[in-house]
Amino acid sequence: MTEIGIGLVGGGYMGKAHAVALSAVGAVFDTPLRPRLEVIAATSPDSAERYRKAYGFARGTADWRDLVADPRVQAVVIASPQSTHRAIAEAAFAAGKPVFCEKPLGASLEDAQAMVAAAEASGLPNMIGFNYVRTPATQFVRRLLAEGAIGEITWFRGEHTEDFLADPALPSTWRTRDRANGCMGDLAPHPINCMLALMGPVAELSARIETIHTTRPGPTGPEAVTNDDHAQMMLRFAGGAMGHLYISRTATGRKMGYAYEIHGTKGAIRFDQEDQNSVWLYRAEGPEATRGFTRILTGPAHPDFLAFCQGPGHGTGYQDQIIIEARDFLTAIHSGQPVWPSFRDGLAVWQLVETAFQSSDSRQWLPVPPT
Amino acid sequence: MTEIGIGLVGGGYMGKAHAVALSAVGAVFDTPLRPRLEVIAATSPDSAERYRKAYGFARGTADWRDLVADPRVQAVVIASPQSTHRAIAEAAFAAGKPVFCEKPLGASLEDAQAMVAAAEASGLPNMIGFNYVRTPATQFVRRLLAEGAIGEITWFRGEHTEDFLADPALPSTWRTRDRANGCMGDLAPHPINCMLALMGPVAELSARIETIHTTRPGPTGPEAVTNDDHAQMMLRFAGGAMGHLYISRTATGRKMGYAYEIHGTKGAIRFDQEDQNSVWLYRAEGPEATRGFTRILTGPAHPDFLAFCQGPGHGTGYQDQIIIEARDFLTAIHSGQPVWPSFRDGLAVWQLVETAFQSSDSRQWLPVPPT
Amino acid sequence: MTEIGIGLVGGGYMGKAHAVALSAVGAVFDTPLRPRLEVIAATSPDSAERYRKAYGFARGTADWRDLVADPRVQAVVIASPQSTHRAIAEAAFAAGKPVFCEKPLGASLEDAQAMVAAAEASGLPNMIGFNYVRTPATQFVRRLLAEGAIGEITWFRGEHTEDFLADPALPSTWRTRDRANGCMGDLAPHPINCMLALMGPVAELSARIETIHTTRPGPTGPEAVTNDDHAQMMLRFAGGAMGHLYISRTATGRKMGYAYEIHGTKGAIRFDQEDQNSVWLYRAEGPEATRGFTRILTGPAHPDFLAFCQGPGHGTGYQDQIIIEARDFLTAIHSGQPVWPSFRDGLAVWQLVETAFQSSDSRQWLPVPPT
Amino acid sequence: MTEIGIGLVGGGYMGKAHAVALSAVGAVFDTPLRPRLEVIAATSPDSAERYRKAYGFARGTADWRDLVADPRVQAVVIASPQSTHRAIAEAAFAAGKPVFCEKPLGASLEDAQAMVAAAEASGLPNMIGFNYVRTPATQFVRRLLAEGAIGEITWFRGEHTEDFLADPALPSTWRTRDRANGCMGDLAPHPINCMLALMGPVAELSARIETIHTTRPGPTGPEAVTNDDHAQMMLRFAGGAMGHLYISRTATGRKMGYAYEIHGTKGAIRFDQEDQNSVWLYRAEGPEATRGFTRILTGPAHPDFLAFCQGPGHGTGYQDQIIIEARDFLTAIHSGQPVWPSFRDGLAVWQLVETAFQSSDSRQWLPVPPT
Repeated sequence: MTEIGIGLVGGGYMGKAHAVALSAVGAVFDTPLRPRLEVIAATSPDSAERYRKAYGFARGTADWRDLVADPRVQAVVIASPQSTHRAIAEAAFAAGKPVFCEKPLGASLEDAQAMVAAAEASGLPNMIGFNYVRTPATQFVRRLLAEGAIGEITWFRGEHTEDFLADPALPSTWRTRDRANGCMGDLAPHPINCMLALMGPVAELSARIETIHTTRPGPTGPEAVTNDDHAQMMLRFAGGAMGHLYISRTATGRKMGYAYEIHGTKGAIRFDQEDQNSVWLYRAEGPEATRGFTRILTGPAHPDFLAFCQGPGHGTGYQDQIIIEARDFLTAIHSGQPVWPSFRDGLAVWQLVETAFQSSDSRQWLPVPPT
Repeated sequence: MTEIGIGLVGGGYMGKAHAVALSAVGAVFDTPLRPRLEVIAATSPDSAERYRKAYGFARGTADWRDLVADPRVQAVVIASPQSTHRAIAEAAFAAGKPVFCEKPLGASLEDAQAMVAAAEASGLPNMIGFNYVRTPATQFVRRLLAEGAIGEITWFRGEHTEDFLADPALPSTWRTRDRANGCMGDLAPHPINCMLALMGPVAELSARIETIHTTRPGPTGPEAVTNDDHAQMMLRFAGGAMGHLYISRTATGRKMGYAYEIHGTKGAIRFDQEDQNSVWLYRAEGPEATRGFTRILTGPAHPDFLAFCQGPGHGTGYQDQIIIEARDFLTAIHSGQPVWPSFRDGLAVWQLVETAFQSSDSRQWLPVPPT
Repeated sequence: MTEIGIGLVGGGYMGKAHAVALSAVGAVFDTPLRPRLEVIAATSPDSAERYRKAYGFARGTADWRDLVADPRVQAVVIASPQSTHRAIAEAAFAAGKPVFCEKPLGASLEDAQAMVAAAEASGLPNMIGFNYVRTPATQFVRRLLAEGAIGEITWFRGEHTEDFLADPALPSTWRTRDRANGCMGDLAPHPINCMLALMGPVAELSARIETIHTTRPGPTGPEAVTNDDHAQMMLRFAGGAMGHLYISRTATGRKMGYAYEIHGTKGAIRFDQEDQNSVWLYRAEGPEATRGFTRILTGPAHPDFLAFCQGPGHGTGYQDQIIIEARDFLTAIHSGQPVWPSFRDGLAVWQLVETAFQSSDSRQWLPVPPT
Repeated sequence: MTEIGIGLVGGGYMGKAHAVALSAVGAVFDTPLRPRLEVIAATSPDSAERYRKAYGFARGTADWRDLVADPRVQAVVIASPQSTHRAIAEAAFAAGKPVFCEKPLGASLEDAQAMVAAAEASGLPNMIGFNYVRTPATQFVRRLLAEGAIGEITWFRGEHTEDFLADPALPSTWRTRDRANGCMGDLAPHPINCMLALMGPVAELSARIETIHTTRPGPTGPEAVTNDDHAQMMLRFAGGAMGHLYISRTATGRKMGYAYEIHGTKGAIRFDQEDQNSVWLYRAEGPEATRGFTRILTGPAHPDFLAFCQGPGHGTGYQDQIIIEARDFLTAIHSGQPVWPSFRDGLAVWQLVETAFQSSDSRQWLPVPPT
């Protein structure tokens, strides 16, 4: 059992998810490398120490450069705010260390381009954290599509809808400032990644991005909201099909509306992350009288399921997605083989996001540059 | 019990539905006027006689002019192909007879404009058959919106998806020829009418209309498909909200995907005609722990339900929608009050359809002219 | 088009449903006999006249004997309270007239036995109104079972749950008095009939019948409830399978919980009348990864559907069930062939109900006598 | 951060689940004690070594006595076959070590009685692994019931249905031999525990337990199946309500049908483990027109949810349940406070199981002895 020393930058929301995943992954998957929790970096010595104790790291630091430089750290997991991604990743690659980076890849297209350049120049494993695409359900959908189970694809409709800013009385925060924290910058990378994984590249799009609640209460009165609340785009995929994507943080009632439906000439698929252990499949075969959408419960016959649960109907949850990511990152480091999704997949998301902003501003259909 | 003599043009698909509705409506609703089935017109004497016997009309004719002219016919129901709507309606109004016309209103925007002009010049009751908007469920949704149950509306997504031409091996027929028989001409009027009824007028749109299967098998080889298979449009409503509409006849697995979801600042609504007796309502009130989408079964507390069923959970079906239409048409004739939806609502649909075609051709956002 | 004169006894709840059905059935099904609405009987001249006008009968009467005796009445539909069923049916058969009787068959096992005797002695068509078993969905389930689609049956679970007396504050009425108006007398006949239609005879059962709310508010204080609120029974079918049935009028939240699930060695079926146009079918065949319950929407490929709607996804409702019953009654009169369900099916229900009461009283498993 | 040395007996199905949970629990919950994986016991040195490496234990052994005796082992988790539970637990308590034991509690009522006696004599923490009752969803239902959210309970229906032995062609294995491995011995403890947790003690019951497929293919021909395939029981709870429970391993199509519905005078609840992140709640309040079953997605407002996921809609899975159990076991050891569910809860299950067998044999209602 070979160990590998891990440095984790960030101990909050996603940092904790990765700390848990790194603790559990070896027992779940019997991975070739076992993570050794070496250093956790946070924004202050106090929070670093608090995270260190909570997650069981050997050492805490308030300086991510210190973490990257530590020889006991052999791979770096970035779970800090997106504005920090680029510098950390560049430093880690420069130090010869593989990097897993939470989505999105940096805070801008320029960041993402630089990060891909650094990663590819280094030749080191690089992975991005699009966890939702790694559920047994969505992995199964990818397999169905690859097998042609629903024939030629004619239509894709995706959405990522949540309601955490649906109430106009909610106050102004960091979430309502800066384009990178808006609906397109923060939520959209997940469904865009999913769409590209399922459908392949987008050739052109026409988008509409807008702020519904243009001011929110601040401590001394109304403050302007400077990023977007929801966005839609019509799409033409390079493969020929037409599609639509909707992203919203004002979708009252929706908690994790990461959902899609796909029409093909021989069938159709529906999925909604709010029922994450089900895939709905329609196949245009057999007698008309017995056709319908079949609710398939993910189980041992589906990707990555068995390692966790061993039994049908047991069901995977959010944390399991992060454990799957950890397994793949460790496997890539051990094998030297490419891992999916990589930084380049993170860059493809940014290119689509940028095109969408330009399209919304110009009210035009625009081509999406290839990655 | 005052009777009124009805002339029905067309005995096929929709003609039958109206014949049944006219037979049943008086017993269901105890209407002020009772329909007397006087004349049915069809395309040949044989079919007219067949329909006459099947539906219990006093007389059959192969000439709709004969029907319109018959003094025993006091109101005309048009259920013949859309290319015939205009001439029949104009003749009926000229003869001083109220008209119910199946959707769409004529075969073109020009037809629709002429029909509205004729109707309004006559001052006679005129009604159009958008039956789906008349379910207890969708009428209840209208009431919820009018009451502000979900606050200020921020997003509308609608669709009308069926799969009757999803299989590319299906042969060329009248359905695959002529713009009026395409997805935009034939299916779209229903969801457009629904959207306008729920959301009010559309200010501007950007549409994409396309033919997926450009040829289909004909008797002597492949034949060109000359109308559209599916279409999408991004919308800006005059009231400010953004929206999206998708219409398809190639949506494998969907049989009656007349569905919509609406987000508001205080709640959300979802509906799907494939479960036509349910409305899903989310209200952002009360403790977070007990919030969720509520599946409301239509029942005695909902519009128009009681007359049919008198009991909760009984459920209405397709035929009941047509009976509701008949009730409203008869009531309007008796009362002289305007009826909804009228020819003008049919015209509004055509204006949106035309704008969508222009937008798709020009790849531009375009304003929708007011009706 | 041969006509047949109909006499309808009762113009309330079910009387109206039959009046509408008789008005519409000829146009829907092009039946060999067309009903002519001759006489309606009610409890007073006023109500008879009111119903006559509302439903379009030629004549009203306050005396059902007058109706039965009228030579223009050629067949009798009984939709009056169950205590009146027996006398009316006996008189009608004595007069040589076919009878359709609403469920249950009389107010007691003794009534039911006498009614079957009278019907069978007369040799005339006799039919009982178990409408729910006549939906396209449940008729399709019968066909699936007959075809062996789910293999050998191993388990049946049925329920009929409503909530119209769930609130203990609801007052004492006729519904809370007399065994025949209780949950077993009034609701249970529907699901028992359904169960027998799907599963065949019951060999033995063990039941528990109880009154939850033993008093209810009356005009001058609490009044005793003298019939049952809910009941359950474990069952052994003559075919070998085990089962369970639950009936309740205190099932808060349930409006038409006429539902069942059936396990077989090769599949399973689920149905719930609250989604009356769907059948859920699981088949243990094909790859494990694509198995699941399929939601089949009733449509043209299913029994009796086409006549109403002609299109997939249109959906049938409560009224349509009554129209199907009318079709079958008229067809039986015309053809002289037996019709299903007959009075004998109504008797089988009563025998099971009586056995359940005895079992609940004695706390024993008891055999169910054959019908 | 105080550590505690854990000995785990069994490395298979449930052993792995506990190994993962023990690895992750500290990071998830920041528990007062952190587990140190000391010794794992298996049935052979080889498998012990394999599990040791896979799960990261310090030492493996083929002798559970060795594990219990090891001074570095401070608490014992039993995940070995039920026939071994009693001896291991008795030895552990004798050695002064707290015990977590997988369900069921031993292989018989006698085992369970002895294990409770040993646990309670020792005064040490003792916990049993009914994981399904620990989901955020079912914990939320317990809270709703405690708060009286649905009024006075009138009916409970539970089931635990799976299909792993639905196919009669499946061969004879250990699962089809010995009463303890049958449906009542192996599956029933979960739903019985759930029912008791939600509804309180059962006063009396009438059960029917049976083997559907009485022989199965063996290596040299048909072999007798010596335990039960499915079972049902009618129940009277000590609190007054009536209920029903069904357990099956032949429920074709069901993978984790751990489900229940509860009627109360003011509402109703439905849950199905196959959609484990949803609770359906009906409340008989507010206007009739907006009532219905609400699908509540578990989230931060629900028990134990936040620690894992921090975000609405993220969803918990099977593994998370085991982590919650580990948290509670560690907390009990640290605090000295009682933990739920305890061995006594395991004993209550066995008493109900035994009564059910006696009732099925005698075909009588029987009282359930208090625990």
